[in-house]
Amino acid sequence: MEIVKYNGPITGEQIAERLDLARATIRPDLAILTMAGFLDARPRVGYFYSGKKIAQSMADGMVDMKVGDFQSIPVVVNENMSVYDAICQMFLEDVGTLFVVDDHHCLAGVLSRKDLLRSSIGGVDMDKIPVNVIMTRMPNITHCSKHDSLLQVAKKMIDNQIDALPVTEQGEKGLEVIGRITKTNITGAFVALGEEYDL
Amino acid sequence: MEIVKYNGPITGEQIAERLDLARATIRPDLAILTMAGFLDARPRVGYFYSGKKIAQSMADGMVDMKVGDFQSIPVVVNENMSVYDAICQMFLEDVGTLFVVDDHHCLAGVLSRKDLLRSSIGGVDMDKIPVNVIMTRMPNITHCSKHDSLLQVAKKMIDNQIDALPVTEQGEKGLEVIGRITKTNITGAFVALGEEYDL
Repeated sequence: MEIVKYNGPITGEQIAERLDLARATIRPDLAILTMAGFLDARPRVGYFYSGKKIAQSMADGMVDMKVGDFQSIPVVVNENMSVYDAICQMFLEDVGTLFVVDDHHCLAGVLSRKDLLRSSIGGVDMDKIPVNVIMTRMPNITHCSKHDSLLQVAKKMIDNQIDALPVTEQGEKGLEVIGRITKTNITGAFVALGEEYDL
Repeated sequence: MEIVKYNGPITGEQIAERLDLARATIRPDLAILTMAGFLDARPRVGYFYSGKKIAQSMADGMVDMKVGDFQSIPVVVNENMSVYDAICQMFLEDVGTLFVVDDHHCLAGVLSRKDLLRSSIGGVDMDKIPVNVIMTRMPNITHCSKHDSLLQVAKKMIDNQIDALPVTEQGEKGLEVIGRITKTNITGAFVALGEEYDL
């Protein structure tokens, strides 16, 4: 299959030559691969790689999914923003999680819809209290890199019951937020995987 | 492979007999399937199905994922519950979505954390306003059956930007809520698929 994939169209004779085998020896193998749909054969032209994926390649496809290919744009707010303004920002941007940054634009905390809902019924003065009072703060924040495996990040989300992770890059003064990965992105990846295989 | 899967251990002779072919004819095929690891062979015993999955079966595995295998327990509240009590219920049960039912316990609406956050800053009297004033109401609710394909439901969630769907069953007086399917469940299914294939 490798030979056909990278050299097709290629005749049975040529494949046999490359493998240092007789044409007759590889005939049954080629017949099976063609019948199974992994190879296409055309008379007087040769064998083509059909592109039909086999097991390992669907698994490979899943392993190859990287955070960077599925992440969304992060929505960040300064740690001195009021809780009320943060709620408005959340509705304006229509996201479920805000990332909180310090004056150097580095990750300081995370605010979920749940955090904001809790404080909205908690009797605090939402106009005065800044978000850094109610946010989950560093270093208690799970973050990831755009090069991380999406599957590993999905496992972290399930194991640690997290809805969204900041995608970060180490900057001079701390972690810079360059993306956002959520259960919506993972659901999208699940759908994309199904669509890639015409399910 | 089907023959070996359902009849193994079975000898090459017996497989040939079932296929109405000579033993020599199927020898190369059996050799390839054994070398590829799909079948195991033991001298004087015969061929076994190794359980190694091939392409189509990972895709089949994804198609076979049903809502009923991944759904969570639904949290329902009566449509006359106050918004404040519903928020408390949401925290108590630690869910992101509540399903609202009428006095016959049939689906009347859906309440998301977003709906509740909106009303909490909207200046309404949360102790007095019942949830049926702020909920998304039937028939504008996407619901599903436990027999539905998880992949199709995941597509609906992405296409319609829904975080959670009620899993329902037609009852005498309306739709009864028997489950809840969320992006967390889909993320869990994504992780489960990876784990099934040792990724």
